[in-house]
This record gives sequence, C-alpha cells and structure tokens, in this order.
Amino acid sequence: MSIIVQKYGGTSIGTIDKISKVADKVISEKNNGNSLVVVVSAMSGETNRLLNLAKSINPDISGRELDTLISTGEQVTISLLAMTLTKKGHKAISLTGSQAGIFTDDIFNKARIDYINNLPIKKYLDLGNIVVVAGFQGITKAGDITTLGRGGSDTSAVAISVALDAKECQIFTDVNGVYTTDPRISPGAKKIDQITTEEMLELSSQGSKVLQPRAVEFAGKYDVGIRVLSTFEEGTGTIIKKENDDKMEKAIISGIAFNKDEAQLNIRGVPDQPGIASLILGPIADLNIDVDMIVQNVGEDGLANFTFTVPRNDYKVAMQSLEESSKKLQAKKVKGNNEIVKISMVGVGMRTHAGIASKMFSVLAENNINISMISTSEIKISIVTNEDNLETAVNVLHKEFNLDK
Amino acid sequence: MSIIVQKYGGTSIGTIDKISKVADKVISEKNNGNSLVVVVSAMSGETNRLLNLAKSINPDISGRELDTLISTGEQVTISLLAMTLTKKGHKAISLTGSQAGIFTDDIFNKARIDYINNLPIKKYLDLGNIVVVAGFQGITKAGDITTLGRGGSDTSAVAISVALDAKECQIFTDVNGVYTTDPRISPGAKKIDQITTEEMLELSSQGSKVLQPRAVEFAGKYDVGIRVLSTFEEGTGTIIKKENDDKMEKAIISGIAFNKDEAQLNIRGVPDQPGIASLILGPIADLNIDVDMIVQNVGEDGLANFTFTVPRNDYKVAMQSLEESSKKLQAKKVKGNNEIVKISMVGVGMRTHAGIASKMFSVLAENNINISMISTSEIKISIVTNEDNLETAVNVLHKEFNLDK
Repeated sequence: MSIIVQKYGGTSIGTIDKISKVADKVISEKNNGNSLVVVVSAMSGETNRLLNLAKSINPDISGRELDTLISTGEQVTISLLAMTLTKKGHKAISLTGSQAGIFTDDIFNKARIDYINNLPIKKYLDLGNIVVVAGFQGITKAGDITTLGRGGSDTSAVAISVALDAKECQIFTDVNGVYTTDPRISPGAKKIDQITTEEMLELSSQGSKVLQPRAVEFAGKYDVGIRVLSTFEEGTGTIIKKENDDKMEKAIISGIAFNKDEAQLNIRGVPDQPGIASLILGPIADLNIDVDMIVQNVGEDGLANFTFTVPRNDYKVAMQSLEESSKKLQAKKVKGNNEIVKISMVGVGMRTHAGIASKMFSVLAENNINISMISTSEIKISIVTNEDNLETAVNVLHKEFNLDK
Repeated sequence: MSIIVQKYGGTSIGTIDKISKVADKVISEKNNGNSLVVVVSAMSGETNRLLNLAKSINPDISGRELDTLISTGEQVTISLLAMTLTKKGHKAISLTGSQAGIFTDDIFNKARIDYINNLPIKKYLDLGNIVVVAGFQGITKAGDITTLGRGGSDTSAVAISVALDAKECQIFTDVNGVYTTDPRISPGAKKIDQITTEEMLELSSQGSKVLQPRAVEFAGKYDVGIRVLSTFEEGTGTIIKKENDDKMEKAIISGIAFNKDEAQLNIRGVPDQPGIASLILGPIADLNIDVDMIVQNVGEDGLANFTFTVPRNDYKVAMQSLEESSKKLQAKKVKGNNEIVKISMVGVGMRTHAGIASKMFSVLAENNINISMISTSEIKISIVTNEDNLETAVNVLHKEFNLDK
C-alpha cells in the first residue's frame, strides 16, 4: 500500500462541519487503497486567540512557554478529526508532534525539524489506522515542545512525507492550485498543472502565498512530490516536483508574483567606498527589520545611490533610521515610498532564453510603467513600480508571455 | 529548602487578571524561602467548551482522543502562569503531565496515577525554577495522554506532594476552608481548623465539594498534610491530616454534609429470598446507573421492602427499570421520590461515643422531620428526608451537636 500524506490548514478545518468534510476527503483517499497520514493545523483563529492571551501578559512574549501554549491549537484539531473519522467508521488515531517523533532544534517559535522517528506513525499505519498528526509542532531531545513558526504545518507534512517515503504529499488549501498570477488581478490567470520546486520557491517567496517556502525547499531537497489542491472543490491541483516533465521544458515563464507589503527607501549621494552598504543597512538590521531587495549603483559624480525595500509595517522606523544615517554619511538626499509593488516573473526557462528581461522592460515601457528598482536571479526577474501600476503591469506581462494560453 | 505544592482550580485562574493574582500568591510563598510546585487546572469553562466540541461530533464520546483534546485546557494555563511568573521577575517553567513524568494506567477519561518520576520536577526546582505542572492529566507508558477525570487536579497535587516529599499540599479554592456544614444553609456554620482524612473523605463523598475524595484518600494513604485555603482571601484554612492532634480528640461530630442530587426508589412486598437484591439492582447497574444508599428490611408478612438511591438525573430511567422488575418479581408496590435530601453527620468521635444516632433521630423527630432511610458507617450516619426539611434539619443538628461553638 502506498502512503499518502495530506495536509489541511486552519481555514479547511475551522468548524466541526468543515472537519466532517475533511474526514470525507480523507476517507475517500483511503478507499482508493492508500495508507493515510493527515497533518492538520489549528482551527482558524485559534492560534491568534492564544497569542493574544499571551500578549496580554507580556506584549514581547516569545520562547518556550509560548510554544507550549500555542501547540495546544493543533492538539485540539487532531483529536477532533480522529474522533470524526472514528465516528464515520474508520480506525483513526491522533499524534501530537511529540508522539509522532518529530524532533526539532530548540529555537523556540521557529524551530527546524532535525529528524523524524517514523516508527510511531508506521506502527499505527500497520495497525490499519488513519494517522492524524499535529502540524507546526515538534519536540526537542530534552522534551520541550517547539513550534516551527507560522505556516510550519506545510513543512511538517513534507518532512513526514520524506520520513515515510510517501507517494505524494497533498497540501489542501482554499485555492485549487498554483496560478500563473493572482486571478483577482488578472482575469486571464491560468492554473499551472506542474511546476518545479525552484520556480515554486521563487513564486512563494515573492508573494504567492499558497505554500510555505520552507516546505517547498524541503521538498526540493528530498525530491518529494507535492500536490496543491482545494479543500472545497474537486480537481487535480498543481504538482510541484524537483524536475519538470518533458512537456514542461518549453515554458519560459511559469508565473508572475507580486508583493504589496513592502516599502522602498533610497539614499543618494553617499561616498562610494567599501563598507558603505553595511553602514547603511547595519542600523536597519539592528532594529530587527528584514531587508528584501537591495540595489546599489554609482552616479556620475562618483557618489553612490543606494535603494532597498523593507516590510511596509517597518517603513516609518526604517525611514527614521535612514535619516540619521544620512546625516552621519553626509548623504545628499533620502527618499522613501510606501506605495510600491514588487512584481516578479519566475521560470526555469529563463536560464536558457536570453532577452526575457529586455522584453519585460520594453513591454512595461510601452505601457508607461516606470520601474524604480530591478533585481534578477537565475530564474526570476523582479521590478519595483508604483502600486497604481500593479494591475496593468501584471496583465500586459501575463499576455505578452502567453501565460493565458 | 522545603517544597510546597500549591494547587489552583479553574475558578482561581479563569482570567488573565486572576492568573496574575495567583502568581502573586505563589511568589509570596516562594519568598518565604520555600521551593514551589504549582499544579493548575484548566481555566473555568474551558473543559466544558472542549467537551461540547467533542460531543457535537459524537454525543457518546469517550476514550483516548477525548483525553488528548481536553488535556489542552491545562496546557494553556501552565504556560500562561509560567509566562506571568517570568514577567514578574521569577524563574518559572511549565510541565505538562507527560513532561512532569506523571504515569497513569490506560483507563482513559478516569485514569489512575501509577507512579511519578520526580526527576524532571526536581531538576527544574534545583535550577531555581517555580515549576508549574498541569493537573488532571498524565501519560501512559505507551505515551498516550490520559486524564484523571473531573476534579483530578486535586489528586495530581497530592500525588506530586507524595513524590516530592513536600512539606505541605495547599489546595486553593473559592472557600476559605472546610466548614461544619454549608454556611448558605446554616448561618452558624464554623470553619474547621483541623480534620482527619477519614472524616474529610466522608464529608467530601457526601456532598461537601471542597476536595476530590480520591485526593483525600491518596493523602490519607501516604500521610500527606493537605491545607484547604481560599484564593481570594487571607487565612490559615483547614488542615486535613491522617491523625488528629490531641486537641481534636474530643470532637464527636466534625461536620454535617448533605446531598440534594439523589432520588429514592422503593419496591415493596417482594419475596424475601436469597438473590433478591441482585435481581432488583442488576438491571439498574446494567443501565450504568450508580446506586448509593441501599436499605432492605422484612415486613410482617414475610415479604421484603427494598429502598435505594440513585443520581437524580437517572431517576426516570431507574423508575422504568424498577417497574419492569416489579412485574417479574410480583412485587406489591413501587414508589419513587426525587425530592429528597441525604444528610450525613460525620466524625471520628462517633466510634467511641454511643448514642449519637439516637440523639440525632430524636432531635429530628422533635422537629417533625420524617426519616425515610437510614444508613450508618463507622464514622458517619446518613439519613434521607424530604428536600423541604433540609434547612431545619441541618440547623437543629448543627446546634444540638455544638458545631456552632
């Protein structure tokens, strides 16, 4: 019998009714003759409820006790789902992260899985059970409860798939697959049948929030096939595999992602000397602000211009910090813009096809879309433009690169 | 340093504010130079909320998954209390039943503690922590989560006190001690300073719901001193010890308990023959109805009368069963009354003092209180009368036996 690992997120199991529907889906896959392991998150809203309780004690709460607290969210859903499966006449058992042998490091709140002792799950599968495992959580060697950070249930599911050598890891979400771009922005957006883990990684980091990047990374590293499916409608979803099948080789661009949660900061006329980047970014990092895109170039006067993006929530604090740095560095000017969008085109085909970038820029220029930053990687080109341009930019690129065909 | 074990129930820690007040009490005892272990229940209402979720899946839910579910209630409070203690500047750590090494049998929903591996708690105490342990829960040798049944947190606290050889086990409740009777019924009710475990056992089984009977039994068996205290007001509470101190020897009656949650069933004119009791009670037991008092006597015609009490909730079902038995046994009459109260006088002094029973009966008779059942044990006399008589009966007995002095 092949092992199938299924993962259901919080919105899929937010109520007793929804849990019942999830149970039906699980049973249907079991009836196909497979052994089933089901990884679940907390019911939607529950993790936030617990987090708010903790924050009312200490707004800066973190560490061991927080994980002990919020791990109860999944413990509730595993038992409710196991009860539902049993009520529907199927043998089922729930396992917490600890019971399922999911060992992590001791970096509380964002632990990483060290290894999985697959014996407990295997034992219960061999006894004919549907095994329901708490996602998002694990245990240290010392016996402390840990959590993997937000979205960690995807990672749990992939790691369990690896540990059990599962045939497939099915991630159930509220969308029916990965799209060439957001259908709400571009009505021509098409569901992608198959995509490489590399491409998916770029798409998910760039704002297509279907799958947790760490889970995709993990799947790529251990060559596990992931299938993204909808909990609420039928369909074959999107398969994410390390290598494309033949028919996929020809696609140059797989999809267009965008991210409106960033703001852009710019400092001009700073001396172009070694260490200048760290003098600018050091104070930002000290404030625990993540910097995403970084672009530096030298102007005609031999002075450098430096532009970077930060999460939009951190914009004000980052601007203050940059203005202080500006005085120290005797920079000419500091500018910021928190109404930007980052648009990324992703595709493994880019590696072997020249001219993608120039085609992208010329299409945007033809449509009067001004680009304020450009950043490229082997399988991705990202540009930053004003938020107002989002819809037009995505639509013309989507059409130009034949993603709607 | 002496170890003090404190236990706080659900009403004591029902909100973040109350948890903060509990933390202050814990810290104050710690500042007396003691090592502190704190056992907590779930926040009030939480266990019922979880139970209702489970019942909406399966009204007859029981077993392993139910324990996995409801044990999350205490896991939430241990982490919240540990966070609060830390926030107030004290080193604290939370331990689930499993992490605290509380091993039980595998009778889910009403497990019994087999043994406690005291090394984890001791390790964290030695490191200077206030150790916060989840009450009500444990783990089997196979790693399954169990719960001890309602009120089991008292038992957890006493068992941990035994395992750590604690100086005292302090049970914090919403009353400031054990009373000679319920102050709401008898305004003259007095707080008892000291009571034996045996007496407390009779009082708590008989409806004085301050302490879980199993916890008292456990404390008696291992000779641990329990102190019942109020979470909400200062005071020395009531000490429950295996043996009375000298000054206590003279008390004949320690307290008067009553229970309004029962109903009385009566079958008359059944053949007085061996096995008749089991023919009557067998069908009741088959319905999983607990029978409390049982009285049988023989009338003048050589036929027996048989009376017993059941929980009031089970009254209707029990009456139906008894009416069916009545036909089979050709009994003369079946009667029932669900508006009764059982009143019990408890005291170790009874052993050596004759005439307590007759004094009790004559006082009740003088006050026109009719007794429908009598049952006695070594340190207890229980009578059943109409519910209407409760207040008068308790008050006259309380006065007659000098409990208000």
